[in-house]
Amino acid sequence: MEMDLNAQVKKACFLQRLKDFPSKLKDGVTKRIKHVQKFGKDDPRRIIHSIKVGLSLTLVSMLYYVRPLYNSFGVSGMWAILTVVVVSEFTVGGTLSKGLNRAFATLIAGALGVGAVHLARLCGHKGEPIVLGILVFSLGSAVTFSRFFPRIKQRYDYGALIFILTFSMVAVSGYRTDEILVIAYQRLSTILIGGTICILVSIFVFPVWAGEDLHKLVANNIIKLANSLEGFEGEYFPSSEKTSKETNSSVREYKSILTSESTEDTLTNLARWEPGHGRFRLRHPWTKYFKIAGLVRQCAIHFEVLNGCVLSDAKAPPDFISKIQEPCSIMSREAGEALKDIAKSIKTMSRYHVCVNTHIKNSKNAIENLRLALKLSFPETEKDLLEIIPGVTMASTLIYIVNYVEKISEAVEELSVLAHFKETLDPKLSPELGQHHLLHKGTVKPVLEGDNEEECNNSPHVVIANHNEQPPTVNENNVNLGAEKTTVVVV
Amino acid sequence: MEMDLNAQVKKACFLQRLKDFPSKLKDGVTKRIKHVQKFGKDDPRRIIHSIKVGLSLTLVSMLYYVRPLYNSFGVSGMWAILTVVVVSEFTVGGTLSKGLNRAFATLIAGALGVGAVHLARLCGHKGEPIVLGILVFSLGSAVTFSRFFPRIKQRYDYGALIFILTFSMVAVSGYRTDEILVIAYQRLSTILIGGTICILVSIFVFPVWAGEDLHKLVANNIIKLANSLEGFEGEYFPSSEKTSKETNSSVREYKSILTSESTEDTLTNLARWEPGHGRFRLRHPWTKYFKIAGLVRQCAIHFEVLNGCVLSDAKAPPDFISKIQEPCSIMSREAGEALKDIAKSIKTMSRYHVCVNTHIKNSKNAIENLRLALKLSFPETEKDLLEIIPGVTMASTLIYIVNYVEKISEAVEELSVLAHFKETLDPKLSPELGQHHLLHKGTVKPVLEGDNEEECNNSPHVVIANHNEQPPTVNENNVNLGAEKTTVVVV
Repeated sequence: MEMDLNAQVKKACFLQRLKDFPSKLKDGVTKRIKHVQKFGKDDPRRIIHSIKVGLSLTLVSMLYYVRPLYNSFGVSGMWAILTVVVVSEFTVGGTLSKGLNRAFATLIAGALGVGAVHLARLCGHKGEPIVLGILVFSLGSAVTFSRFFPRIKQRYDYGALIFILTFSMVAVSGYRTDEILVIAYQRLSTILIGGTICILVSIFVFPVWAGEDLHKLVANNIIKLANSLEGFEGEYFPSSEKTSKETNSSVREYKSILTSESTEDTLTNLARWEPGHGRFRLRHPWTKYFKIAGLVRQCAIHFEVLNGCVLSDAKAPPDFISKIQEPCSIMSREAGEALKDIAKSIKTMSRYHVCVNTHIKNSKNAIENLRLALKLSFPETEKDLLEIIPGVTMASTLIYIVNYVEKISEAVEELSVLAHFKETLDPKLSPELGQHHLLHKGTVKPVLEGDNEEECNNSPHVVIANHNEQPPTVNENNVNLGAEKTTVVVV
Repeated sequence: MEMDLNAQVKKACFLQRLKDFPSKLKDGVTKRIKHVQKFGKDDPRRIIHSIKVGLSLTLVSMLYYVRPLYNSFGVSGMWAILTVVVVSEFTVGGTLSKGLNRAFATLIAGALGVGAVHLARLCGHKGEPIVLGILVFSLGSAVTFSRFFPRIKQRYDYGALIFILTFSMVAVSGYRTDEILVIAYQRLSTILIGGTICILVSIFVFPVWAGEDLHKLVANNIIKLANSLEGFEGEYFPSSEKTSKETNSSVREYKSILTSESTEDTLTNLARWEPGHGRFRLRHPWTKYFKIAGLVRQCAIHFEVLNGCVLSDAKAPPDFISKIQEPCSIMSREAGEALKDIAKSIKTMSRYHVCVNTHIKNSKNAIENLRLALKLSFPETEKDLLEIIPGVTMASTLIYIVNYVEKISEAVEELSVLAHFKETLDPKLSPELGQHHLLHKGTVKPVLEGDNEEECNNSPHVVIANHNEQPPTVNENNVNLGAEKTTVVVV
């Protein structure tokens, strides 16, 4: 009886589950689709890249579909397909790096392979496989070893791989065929066709430039530091103007910088393969960006300490905090403003050094005020030294950060000289000059560093190129200056 | 006349250069060779790996050289060569990951490709290339898009690439040949042959295990922290026992930890592909290592601040420093000893938690002493607060570091439970028990945490497995325990 009941319950459960299955499946599928859609929306370039790969594949398939092409290349057409699949990278730099590595490695290894086969044939039919085997073994080992060297690994790793591949294939298959030159020619030409298709699609259909990405990544990392500083002020001094809610998320924005080194390294390497494009000329100083990114990360390390101060339960007593609050607030605010101006300078490729230096000077003055406040507060402090340690740690970390902001500013200044950033003039800085500029655009000398040290606000700046101080060649590359995204292509 | 003289001087210069050329060339070549030799000596596994690749290539060439093999596979043998070149990675995990990805992706994509060709043939001769084109385009795009998802990118990126490659090649070449099944079979079987050769050579000829590397990397990073702490003590308090010369280099050993994240990430991913080997079973908790490595890096970030204190010109006044020197020295020394014991625990896969906890407890006591010292020194301090800031920053950074050491110790404790580390007993900890153990090995209960808090010295420890507390299966894997390098292979 009980068994019967049990069986009935089981059956009912099964039926119910069977009934629910379609709706559950639907929910699951909808959830997946939404996830994929969101992922695509986060960076639509991913969808575009996928379509570009599909397009290249379709184009290269023509080698098979179109009769005259098939007649000339035959089954070698599959090397073109293989090339397209392997060479299609997300960025132009990646595609160019792989394509050029593949082409040159195939050319050199193919020639050597043909030479090896001819050499081996001199040794008679029995000696041929032995000589070929020794050559393949020794060249394969040697080139594999060379791939461990950092310099080769960084730029020519793929080329070395293709070298081993092509040499082995040509040398070994040369043992069984007399048409080795035909094979080598067909392989090379199809690889060139596949590589060319990839490179053309990569450059001319919604190109993704590694250099542009690196440029934006560095600027955005600096903005993240600025936001974190802003958020810190709101969270450590809740009485300040900013409410802690709106700053809660921004205070930990710096975290992603701590782990972005490998991305920056990759982008720097790829950017060096790219031709001039948009605002960037050939031989743009990409390694400088990597240096700046390193300083930004060093600075972010001190933010980690600052964050520890925010999260820590042990805070300095309120009366001590209230004494150092003003200079600390000014330090963090001015350092944040300086960082924002530095980021703007990179983003718009214009020089804002007057503004940046003013902010840095203000924050350094605040350091002096902090010293004074600490000096004055000393005889009054009734609490023991121990209790104020967290406050002192926070303040000294802020001093470190201000010093790093200065270093970042110097590095960006170096970059701006090397990359010929435009000279700018801030109307807020010198109202008369600014007005004058607005009326007679481009005729007044730029404000030099130290001319004016009034506060630089975040109000919109007027960017005016100083044509007299720039070589004429630079202006051609600065056409798109100030635009957020560059789509003009220079090959 | 002058012209003549000039020409003579030039000629003499040229001749001299021509004369010097052989010796210069010799010098250059010798220098290069020495550099390469040094590079190979630094990690002889690089040379071994290169020879292994050469060996695999020679083995796979037999498909061409041996007549019966060539008769059955024909030119498809080149897919085996290609597979060997592409799949041969430095670590076993890398080779397995690529080999398995390649094999399964080829199998699935090949089957789908054959299906696509049959489907397209139903649409008549004119419709065939159109249907094939649409299928190649859409599958190529979809799988390319899937490669952006972090989960797929991390483990199956290469498989996705091979999937697109094989599907496109089978589908497109199916348009021109009727022997598509033969092509698919030959391609699959040669890839299996190439992949199998690679995997066998990788596992059985001097294997390099990613898991073993990860294990050592994490232990070495912890030792680097310990050395940096030791070096810090010698450099910040030059009066202490250690001379500053010998510690000068060690104080900045932690630097390499800051940038080792991508290596750890890669090794963790590869280690998960590896079968059990030596001391590690299948499903060893590799992700725990990544977690520990993250904590070690977080700790290294505070070392960056500590290093800033060492390098800074602004030091606290000597009388203040002398007051905090003792507790700070004890903190750094005990934390260093704790780190060394943690590293030893990982290296030997034995539990040293009693030792570690004693050191941590000692360093925490030193924190209390520091607090006391600061409290007492406060009324005496005649200098203003500002001057002692650097000293206070240093001390509070040390407190942070001690806290991180505790976190690392907890994480390693978790790992030791999951990975069934051996229970150990330190004879120094409880001399009587230790003596007893040495006489009647394995018969006495282990010393429990907190039983004894005497100082753990760096003297050699006797490792004794407590058989009563361990499942019998563990002992089999612990055979090689304590050996620096494991070469026993378990597949």
